[in-house]
Amino acid sequence: MSEYEALTPETLAQRLGQLSVLTDKIGKDASGWKVREVGDGNLNLVFIVEGADGTAIVKQALPYVRLVGDSWPLPLKRAFFEYNAMSRQEVNDPGRIPKIIHFDEIQAIIIMEFLTPHIILRNHMMSGTKVRDLGPVIGRFCARNAFRSSDLHMATAKKKADLALFCDNVELCDITENLVFTDPYFDAEMNRHSSPQLDDYVAILRADESLKIEAQHMKRAFTAKAECLCHGDLHSGSIMATVDEARVIDPEFAFYGPFGFDIGMLIGNYLMSYHSMSAHLTDPEQCADYQAWILDVISQTWDSFSDEFSRCWNEERTGILYPSSLYEDQGHYAASLAARQQLLDEIFSDMLGFAGIEMHRRILGLAHNADFETIEDADERAKLEQRALVLGRLLVLNRKTIRGIDHVKALAKAVESGDLK
Amino acid sequence: MSEYEALTPETLAQRLGQLSVLTDKIGKDASGWKVREVGDGNLNLVFIVEGADGTAIVKQALPYVRLVGDSWPLPLKRAFFEYNAMSRQEVNDPGRIPKIIHFDEIQAIIIMEFLTPHIILRNHMMSGTKVRDLGPVIGRFCARNAFRSSDLHMATAKKKADLALFCDNVELCDITENLVFTDPYFDAEMNRHSSPQLDDYVAILRADESLKIEAQHMKRAFTAKAECLCHGDLHSGSIMATVDEARVIDPEFAFYGPFGFDIGMLIGNYLMSYHSMSAHLTDPEQCADYQAWILDVISQTWDSFSDEFSRCWNEERTGILYPSSLYEDQGHYAASLAARQQLLDEIFSDMLGFAGIEMHRRILGLAHNADFETIEDADERAKLEQRALVLGRLLVLNRKTIRGIDHVKALAKAVESGDLK
Repeated sequence: MSEYEALTPETLAQRLGQLSVLTDKIGKDASGWKVREVGDGNLNLVFIVEGADGTAIVKQALPYVRLVGDSWPLPLKRAFFEYNAMSRQEVNDPGRIPKIIHFDEIQAIIIMEFLTPHIILRNHMMSGTKVRDLGPVIGRFCARNAFRSSDLHMATAKKKADLALFCDNVELCDITENLVFTDPYFDAEMNRHSSPQLDDYVAILRADESLKIEAQHMKRAFTAKAECLCHGDLHSGSIMATVDEARVIDPEFAFYGPFGFDIGMLIGNYLMSYHSMSAHLTDPEQCADYQAWILDVISQTWDSFSDEFSRCWNEERTGILYPSSLYEDQGHYAASLAARQQLLDEIFSDMLGFAGIEMHRRILGLAHNADFETIEDADERAKLEQRALVLGRLLVLNRKTIRGIDHVKALAKAVESGDLK
Repeated sequence: MSEYEALTPETLAQRLGQLSVLTDKIGKDASGWKVREVGDGNLNLVFIVEGADGTAIVKQALPYVRLVGDSWPLPLKRAFFEYNAMSRQEVNDPGRIPKIIHFDEIQAIIIMEFLTPHIILRNHMMSGTKVRDLGPVIGRFCARNAFRSSDLHMATAKKKADLALFCDNVELCDITENLVFTDPYFDAEMNRHSSPQLDDYVAILRADESLKIEAQHMKRAFTAKAECLCHGDLHSGSIMATVDEARVIDPEFAFYGPFGFDIGMLIGNYLMSYHSMSAHLTDPEQCADYQAWILDVISQTWDSFSDEFSRCWNEERTGILYPSSLYEDQGHYAASLAARQQLLDEIFSDMLGFAGIEMHRRILGLAHNADFETIEDADERAKLEQRALVLGRLLVLNRKTIRGIDHVKALAKAVESGDLK
């Protein structure tokens, strides 16, 4: 088929039944395949295809935003960027994403491993389920992808070619640029917040000129700090997990951006989960225990990012930046360490800025998180959402002076207890 | 001719004599053209072609570095980047570059306006000739090109497409990355400095670990701070001037980089001229007068950059960054001003970093400046070069704390007088 056509559960077996890479995995008798469309995201079709010998995921981009309809067109090319990002992530941190089985650029289809019994991390968190090694595993994933796609490691001609390639992911970047960095900070058309109880604080937040300045400085970093290949949308809905394992999916927002972007967005989502938790786990002890776990995950995410980034710095610094010819080869080990630490400090500060902005946009912008959305009591929901807004603001405004992840945890606790408003 | 072939004075008229855009300018009788090869740069062939009705410049890239020979190949594609940069510069600040007459991608030829009686600015400066409005004109040129090629002004899809386009200028960026940011700070193979009298200070400088860290932070900005289209090689040899007018040439190093890059490199060159001046103007009064003029040019360059950037911010901020919807439209004028000032502060700091590094690489690296190279007395030359090295180091190390261009001028004077060593 040479022209794009959306798959349906009825046509899928007929259209993909001859694809040997797929039939090898799930079985040759396509007429017996069970096909279910399960896409619950905002953008795409997702099918679970079950054959006699196995199961696979078929993801297909739609030429518009699924959440909104064909009034909001969105290019199919995002599947190309998703595939290219996945290919690189698989090289940079093998085994952390679903295995890719097939890519069809014209049909905007990626066929990949069916992860089972994985569910999205956000759902685990809402039910108070802990995921073993979540922090270390994802922190490492972020560090490896950041380091290994940057001028710290890659041949710069290759890095520049990848930067150019992902520059074309314009429409997906545009979503982030508008919906994340700008809309939440004024009364934009597509914004919504969940209840009038938030109105007063939203007014305070939108009147905070320093906050709006910092948000745009972070947006400038998003558009012009082309340090590494970012996943682009790494939240707790982009991680599939069992109690034992976490895997990363959905990098269609991939772009070259700041080292601190992915990890910042992710930690923003963890902090929202933290502040929403008392509504999901009504037993105070259980809630406190899970909240402590979330804060540990946050620490471990940053610590393992930092440790792995440092290990890569020491062992894989083959790119054009901070070359060992200038430092270690001259006996200037302290300079190498200091440069690395200064870079990590900058990443930490960027991370906090992106985390805080993500916390704002998920409560004030177009796309919200189930963590808060599923809280039925409007007063309770607004109270908890406001905590996330307050913490987000603190992170953005103080991103250059907050020292260390323990400081972040202390702020989160102080906001949760009501000491900080 | 479908394959590249280098022009010669003998073949030029035959090969370009049928090109109507050229014959319209300089005359149809190509057999009567006078052709001289005058390229004195490091990379290319440059012909002055004089016909009955006028004169034009024919610039052709060679497939290697002219200065070194065919042992150092360099892609012809740089002419494509030069042409594309010139086209954008002509739109962004009309009339400041030579008019483009013709571009031939396969032959790597750009035919352009012959500027007369312009000579390169460096030669004016070495002879103590002042150029009227040099500071304002070039400061404005830098500001307009920076602002109008950035996400402050351009449609972001167009900016991303240009970023992708110039990403491919790999080999020219590679020259800057190695020769400017790294080689000068250790004993690299291609380095040279002009006399052993500098050895002691060079050793001090290369032992300065903080300096080497900052230099690599600036290199990271060069490779990953993709804010605007930079000329890429804006020194006093890339400006052609009469006493009344300055024009900008040779943007083949064009790339997307930091707002402060071009203006920083340029001011570094002005400061080298400043410290070299006492060897060129032996009359102390004349020298002092000219040095004061250079410092004024530096002030005016920054001031007009800053003023024009601010004017553009107020009147042409149509891009995705710092949108007026978030500031002015909400009555938050102070926030817009503050954001602009913070951005200008960052540009200023980047500018100083690039200026200082440029001063080091032109004295310690491969490519030197005539300002110092033409000083015959080795002791004198080393003394003056050392001043430039000292000032460059101060600028790099203190780039975040130096407040304002007057502070820079005071440092330059203190170094020139010997108060600062």
